[in-house]
Amino acid sequence: MKKVFAYIVALSFFNVAYAQEKSPVSVTMNKVKLEFMVDQAGQPAYALFYNQKPALKKSFLGFSLADDSTFYKGFKLIGTAKKQVDENWKPVWGEVSTIRNHYEELTVHLQQQSGLQRKLDIIFRVFEDGVGFRYEFPKQENLNYFIVTDEHTEFTLTGDHKSFWIPGDYDSNEYIYTTSKISGIDNQPVVNAATDIAVRTAPDRYSVQTPLMLKSDDGLYINIHEAALLNYPAMQLHADRGTYKLTASLVPDAVGNKAYLNAPCHTPWRTIILSDKATDILSSKLILNLNDPSLIENTSWIKPMKFVGVWWEMQIGKSTWSYAKNRDDKDADGKLIPSGLHGANTQNVKRYIDFAAKNNIQAVLVEGWNTGWEDWFGNWKENVFDFVTPYPDFDIKGISDYAAAKGIKMIMHNETSGSATNYERQLDTAYRLMNKYGYPAVKTGYVGKIIPRGEHHDGQWMVQHYARVAQKAADHLVMLDAHEPNRPTGLQRTYPNWMASESGRGNEYNAFSTGNPPAHETILPFTRLMGGPMDYTPGIFKLKGYAPGNAGRQLHTTLAKQLALYVTLYSPLQMAADLPENYEAHPDAFQFISDVAVDWDDTKILEAEPGDYLTIARKAKGTGDWFLGAITNENRRTTSLNLNFLEKGKSYDATIYMDAPNADWKTNPEAYQLKKMKVTSSTKLNLKLAAGGGAALSIKLSK
Amino acid sequence: MKKVFAYIVALSFFNVAYAQEKSPVSVTMNKVKLEFMVDQAGQPAYALFYNQKPALKKSFLGFSLADDSTFYKGFKLIGTAKKQVDENWKPVWGEVSTIRNHYEELTVHLQQQSGLQRKLDIIFRVFEDGVGFRYEFPKQENLNYFIVTDEHTEFTLTGDHKSFWIPGDYDSNEYIYTTSKISGIDNQPVVNAATDIAVRTAPDRYSVQTPLMLKSDDGLYINIHEAALLNYPAMQLHADRGTYKLTASLVPDAVGNKAYLNAPCHTPWRTIILSDKATDILSSKLILNLNDPSLIENTSWIKPMKFVGVWWEMQIGKSTWSYAKNRDDKDADGKLIPSGLHGANTQNVKRYIDFAAKNNIQAVLVEGWNTGWEDWFGNWKENVFDFVTPYPDFDIKGISDYAAAKGIKMIMHNETSGSATNYERQLDTAYRLMNKYGYPAVKTGYVGKIIPRGEHHDGQWMVQHYARVAQKAADHLVMLDAHEPNRPTGLQRTYPNWMASESGRGNEYNAFSTGNPPAHETILPFTRLMGGPMDYTPGIFKLKGYAPGNAGRQLHTTLAKQLALYVTLYSPLQMAADLPENYEAHPDAFQFISDVAVDWDDTKILEAEPGDYLTIARKAKGTGDWFLGAITNENRRTTSLNLNFLEKGKSYDATIYMDAPNADWKTNPEAYQLKKMKVTSSTKLNLKLAAGGGAALSIKLSK
Ligand SMILES: [Ca+2]
Ligand SMILES: [Ca+2]
Repeated sequence: MKKVFAYIVALSFFNVAYAQEKSPVSVTMNKVKLEFMVDQAGQPAYALFYNQKPALKKSFLGFSLADDSTFYKGFKLIGTAKKQVDENWKPVWGEVSTIRNHYEELTVHLQQQSGLQRKLDIIFRVFEDGVGFRYEFPKQENLNYFIVTDEHTEFTLTGDHKSFWIPGDYDSNEYIYTTSKISGIDNQPVVNAATDIAVRTAPDRYSVQTPLMLKSDDGLYINIHEAALLNYPAMQLHADRGTYKLTASLVPDAVGNKAYLNAPCHTPWRTIILSDKATDILSSKLILNLNDPSLIENTSWIKPMKFVGVWWEMQIGKSTWSYAKNRDDKDADGKLIPSGLHGANTQNVKRYIDFAAKNNIQAVLVEGWNTGWEDWFGNWKENVFDFVTPYPDFDIKGISDYAAAKGIKMIMHNETSGSATNYERQLDTAYRLMNKYGYPAVKTGYVGKIIPRGEHHDGQWMVQHYARVAQKAADHLVMLDAHEPNRPTGLQRTYPNWMASESGRGNEYNAFSTGNPPAHETILPFTRLMGGPMDYTPGIFKLKGYAPGNAGRQLHTTLAKQLALYVTLYSPLQMAADLPENYEAHPDAFQFISDVAVDWDDTKILEAEPGDYLTIARKAKGTGDWFLGAITNENRRTTSLNLNFLEKGKSYDATIYMDAPNADWKTNPEAYQLKKMKVTSSTKLNLKLAAGGGAALSIKLSK
Repeated sequence: MKKVFAYIVALSFFNVAYAQEKSPVSVTMNKVKLEFMVDQAGQPAYALFYNQKPALKKSFLGFSLADDSTFYKGFKLIGTAKKQVDENWKPVWGEVSTIRNHYEELTVHLQQQSGLQRKLDIIFRVFEDGVGFRYEFPKQENLNYFIVTDEHTEFTLTGDHKSFWIPGDYDSNEYIYTTSKISGIDNQPVVNAATDIAVRTAPDRYSVQTPLMLKSDDGLYINIHEAALLNYPAMQLHADRGTYKLTASLVPDAVGNKAYLNAPCHTPWRTIILSDKATDILSSKLILNLNDPSLIENTSWIKPMKFVGVWWEMQIGKSTWSYAKNRDDKDADGKLIPSGLHGANTQNVKRYIDFAAKNNIQAVLVEGWNTGWEDWFGNWKENVFDFVTPYPDFDIKGISDYAAAKGIKMIMHNETSGSATNYERQLDTAYRLMNKYGYPAVKTGYVGKIIPRGEHHDGQWMVQHYARVAQKAADHLVMLDAHEPNRPTGLQRTYPNWMASESGRGNEYNAFSTGNPPAHETILPFTRLMGGPMDYTPGIFKLKGYAPGNAGRQLHTTLAKQLALYVTLYSPLQMAADLPENYEAHPDAFQFISDVAVDWDDTKILEAEPGDYLTIARKAKGTGDWFLGAITNENRRTTSLNLNFLEKGKSYDATIYMDAPNADWKTNPEAYQLKKMKVTSSTKLNLKLAAGGGAALSIKLSK
């Protein structure tokens, strides 16, 4: 009874407030309508409609500043401006070759009516598939340098929607997703259970991360995130479980402030993508469109690629990052005594190079190549790595020469252990080393508590750090794959060399923890990947018994699903994560990984439901060949494919990599079968996906 | 009555505790005796005696660690070791050419008797003039990486001594000294009044800084400080005003921790210098002896020198650091519109170069040469300066060439505004620029709240930062003069290119605030300068009416005292701070500055009393010439000089720069007179010092 009463009160308040106002300003783009209003207390607010039905109820806007805790009221609307944009642009790489940017923009000019009479603008861009808005602080006499202590942006849901969330953690996105109603959000048990995550900081138990995927009872899909996050902390959302109101919650800095700004300036875009079709959420380009064009003029050196790596073997405990067992294992000369388990030794690296060269894999990543791994983690230690000194058994020159002779590129690894200050001091020497030995890409890592101490992975200082690293990499013509940064917000448009991030729970958790549940990869595209490519590291073929001393450990997918992930989880840097010997045991299946593209002319989201299933077809850039991936969650499933996206009148050779009839993620994950057939645009196929299964198709133009 | 009672209780407790222990371990060196003991609770402690009388009563030792809040008790003494050292060493530059290092060392090995059974060593070095001790954390299984949350080192005074103190501020040493009894220590009114200090953080009103100068009622002088502060926060002292016990209080980091350490490691030395003569305190080399020898092998490029600078004119408001009036004064092309007040313009700089070349001054400092000064301060802004971009009216190449042609060296200025992260990112480019244009020295500055935000000027992170900068400077053969770092602790021995620091209230306060009282310079040698040279910037000749629009502003010294400071306040980088035109008005007085040395073979502290007076004679390196400075506080004074330090049988030409008979800091500060005479080692002189006055002598071997 209490709950119902609360609901009625909220509703009537909403109506009364509306009545007190002048008519709201509104903008409509097809099914999406935005209304903006200022209430009698001078509080700016907005509401969203989809297909004439409320999508977000009246939601207030504004800030607390260090010198004005009520910078969210007392405003008067002093002007508005509108403009329309409809343009096309071409990303350097991506899921499609051309992107349409079509929106109507509303700018509202607000000014406080008392005190310092400060001005605040809010810019709304209304797209066919949602809305982005950001705050702009105009140049003005009474607002120069200032500190944001809180952002009060609201997203007031119309009901107790189903939501796919991870805890609002300042330092990690590497959680399993929870599916619950808004009223059921409580991250505390999730955080407490997540002992496999290195650093957790989640002080608000009712806070969740974005991208937050929501689905209303009447079938409206809503995705809330942000775009172009620079010079500002990441936004998390505090959920009011009674009113279904989500409020921005910014990640604080070491002293509890949120952002240090200097007018004129603006916040990142707050984004709401709306559709009654789940597939539209995945094909939305709203977030990319809200990011700035490339800051890098010459992008010819930026090349999507696949890679293998000396990495999974350390994750599963077969070899080690470190050279000695511990830092005190030293001989009389003070030299480290090798444990014999060091993965990044020259001979082993050459084995990966040989495998890559034979199998159409362009690059090799090597972790654990540089000194410092004996005591790199968990000590909040500042000077962990120097990023230039190889272990004695890693012949950096010999390896580079060997790789170059075989046409293979090396990917550098720079783990920081969270010590960003140390990394910033070494950036020049680190990137000069990459240039010297011809490494075209770097994988960074931030496993550990951040230094500057008190800062967080997702706070303003680190947001700027990641961008500084991307810029430094660009200066040195190096592509970047960042692990453990804040989650992406479409900055790959602005820094196209920042090809991928991890920023989520990757395949690695299957190596060292209880892993990722079968539904995980059906949720990721609706959440983590909304902001940009994820280096998920798919492609595990040995799905059980891979972890020495841990016979029960297994992945929660079939082998065919691992292949499908190359299509369903987009990244222009895509790893084939398993060991060469495991691939060599299944050369027919590995053929798909050899063949699959990492850059695309077109993408068709054929079917999708978060948490359940996903089927995507993509057209490889510049070839006319298509690749298709279909995955399911823990439930087996038959999917009906209509290949009408293929070019009419053309004939294609399809290879179908599918679960064997008796395949099952739990009992029989490695059972797969191949089927080759001719297909055309009129072909229809039924594919049976095992529990935790999937299917992958290569569909090549017949020659 | 109450006070007496408290004293008796404290005394009897002391005796009882003693009785419970085994005999203490003791070490005696001439008049100084150290006793070490462990009480029945396993708490280590020490006591000091001078001339058989207690100098420090039983004082406990130990720590709280993040994982053991009682790492100060439960210890057992498991072993001791002693050794004697008597050696001589030669500093690269300094007050004397040879330093004797004579001490007896006691190492006590302690181990906790329960729990993790951790070990702790304490090393005491007992000198003829005091004691240094430090904690050492030996390599051991149960102590690896650890966090110090508090250091509990005590210095228990024997009575309510007179003390010369500044507030225990985490961010500034730039206070006026207060002279009070221990029972009168209360920094709150001092901190509140010090509105002329840019950043103040003094949360403990009963905390004071070291070096702390003390004098007991029976005439014992005690100086408490630390030596070799690296990788640890600065130590301040919390005063118990009832028991006269001083307890170490470490400057915290952004999250409240004090130090992040990794065994084996050690703390800085805690130093207690003792004497019944104030002059012995000033001639003590205990702190230098406790520092490590030079880390720089080739020191031939390190050369003490005098300099003038485009600086005082900005301090007094005659010109500005900034090029435009404010950052928004831009023309249609977006270029800054010059205000016409910019001090660091090529023509003006050349004027200083000309002056230096004519007057035996080796170098010229220029502040405000680089872009960013329009909004550099007070915004907690990270990217303030780039350290390489000159303002349009500063022709860096032309100026360097001009200076080189005249044999003048340029001193670079790198103000960080406290943004150490920004400076660390630019260090390489900043020092490469100095090398490119032949700048042999840099003056750094840290005026502002520190970034990383939450860190303090005197915390562990910044202590490491200053050392990193010194090392980077050494790598580039650049001498360093650091303004606003933590106060020195003798590291000039280890980094002899780190020639000077400000770290105290310099002459600059006379330019922009009510300035420094007449006693200030008689206290500085006993406090701030105990740790190392101070860039005080003496030599102001225009002592009144120098600040445009502030006719009443004046220095609190006479002109003759300004000259004397070149001898009494030692620095190997010594500024002649006033404007060329003010010097040109008094060429006879400026002759002393032209002549005075900045590197010495010998130093004689002839007489001294903190807060009252000071007379020092120094022998210029490699010449046989002597220079003498005598200063007094607000009281006029006659000092009787015995020149018996001069070489017997030699004749000298002395020039005496002294206060005119009617000179007085307040009413007639610029009245001075010169007297030339022949002197020998048997000469005796009476010098009359005016109120706030002084005298300077050059005593050159007759030719
Ligand atoms: Ca990770
Ligand atoms: Ca200063």
